[in-house]
Amino acid sequence: MKSTKISIVGAGPGDPELITLKGLKALQAADVILYDALANNALLDYAKSGAKLIYVGKRCGSHSLKQADINGLILRMALKYDHVLRLKGGDPFIFGRGHEELVHLSKFDFDIEIIPGISSVTGLPLLQHVPLTRRNISESFWVCTGTTKNHQLSSDILLAAKSKATVVILMGMRKLKEICDVFISEGRSILPIMIISNGSTPSEKVILGSVSDIYEKATTSGIKAPGIIILGDTVSLHPEFIHQHAIATWA
Amino acid sequence: MKSTKISIVGAGPGDPELITLKGLKALQAADVILYDALANNALLDYAKSGAKLIYVGKRCGSHSLKQADINGLILRMALKYDHVLRLKGGDPFIFGRGHEELVHLSKFDFDIEIIPGISSVTGLPLLQHVPLTRRNISESFWVCTGTTKNHQLSSDILLAAKSKATVVILMGMRKLKEICDVFISEGRSILPIMIISNGSTPSEKVILGSVSDIYEKATTSGIKAPGIIILGDTVSLHPEFIHQHAIATWA
Repeated sequence: MKSTKISIVGAGPGDPELITLKGLKALQAADVILYDALANNALLDYAKSGAKLIYVGKRCGSHSLKQADINGLILRMALKYDHVLRLKGGDPFIFGRGHEELVHLSKFDFDIEIIPGISSVTGLPLLQHVPLTRRNISESFWVCTGTTKNHQLSSDILLAAKSKATVVILMGMRKLKEICDVFISEGRSILPIMIISNGSTPSEKVILGSVSDIYEKATTSGIKAPGIIILGDTVSLHPEFIHQHAIATWA
Repeated sequence: MKSTKISIVGAGPGDPELITLKGLKALQAADVILYDALANNALLDYAKSGAKLIYVGKRCGSHSLKQADINGLILRMALKYDHVLRLKGGDPFIFGRGHEELVHLSKFDFDIEIIPGISSVTGLPLLQHVPLTRRNISESFWVCTGTTKNHQLSSDILLAAKSKATVVILMGMRKLKEICDVFISEGRSILPIMIISNGSTPSEKVILGSVSDIYEKATTSGIKAPGIIILGDTVSLHPEFIHQHAIATWA
């Protein structure tokens, strides 16, 4: 008996061409696709004719479906169809709860494959020509979440602010002021910082500045979640950094 | 006048199907492809008929071409052909010196595009069903290099060993004993650790253990660079962890 195939696929950071070839082939083969708010809908055009497309998106603050409901829905689909695909924004395992979905499904006798995606963590700074590490500037990068279960700032950010690592923060837009205050209290108010919102899509917005002025710039510009925050000296390698930053400082 | 196009493309961690759709399209269009030791040669099959394929690989300890030579070669090709593609293993900006190549080329009037790749940092643990973060286990991950310019262990690893982050170390295979000693001196000898060598290829090898026993296991198994090292409690979520680790402890 052929067992049901389940593919958990990373859609990449926004640009539909940033999905992997393996992910694309799975999309073309699946009978059912359950997709996120963070996955680009243009990818659904690759679905085969007659494939069932189900939106299960959730965004911070406005849950469409709870995780348990999504798990249950995937399971029901897997009992009915031959190939079920779960399409998730970015990479399924980078703060994506993809592992929780995997563990839930692993209790049953399915043929499960997980296909990585380009994470916004690495992909979006690159598209801005900003490396997370660079000889003589930064030897490491530290990836944190701004939103923890108990709504407090992660204690990892407190230690990251003391480190020489480039710091990347996902889901931190609502905590921007608190994050900047942590770095300022470590004497790092002139540290370069970049915020990328809706990265690699037509509505992409990028703000450059320093820890001391970015909150005001973000407020003025109206930049919104979802976004990623990058703090570190390599941000000053952005081709617009000196220009944009000078305007803000001298205006 | 049409300007020369240069694409700097991430090939992904090994499996040729883990290249992005955008990277694939660039490969199919390029007149010249300069490729790394770390990029999968199977990707060259996508090159158009008559495309010039040039190996510029280098591996730790056996440089085929120096970075300056590679930069010069890309430049010479760009002056001669319409579309030059630089194919790099993993993601071009994750310890890949892609930014140095970009800066060099940016001095000239080329149309440069950079296409991200699946980094081994995120892609390989996922393929092992190990998340780098997980609710109630780890809220962040810290990516370090084991090989610094002065051949010393990066001081970032000393601080990372004190943190609660999952720690990912690239180019650290030759420093494995030193890395483990740092974690042991922080009282973390039972911390789960995983080494993945030649990840997502037919010659992939994975070793699981704890900081206290992994060096012996690695030596016994003959596992070799290139490899990535992952240290953190989420490693114990690997489906084989308890089994493999128990054998080592109780044998």
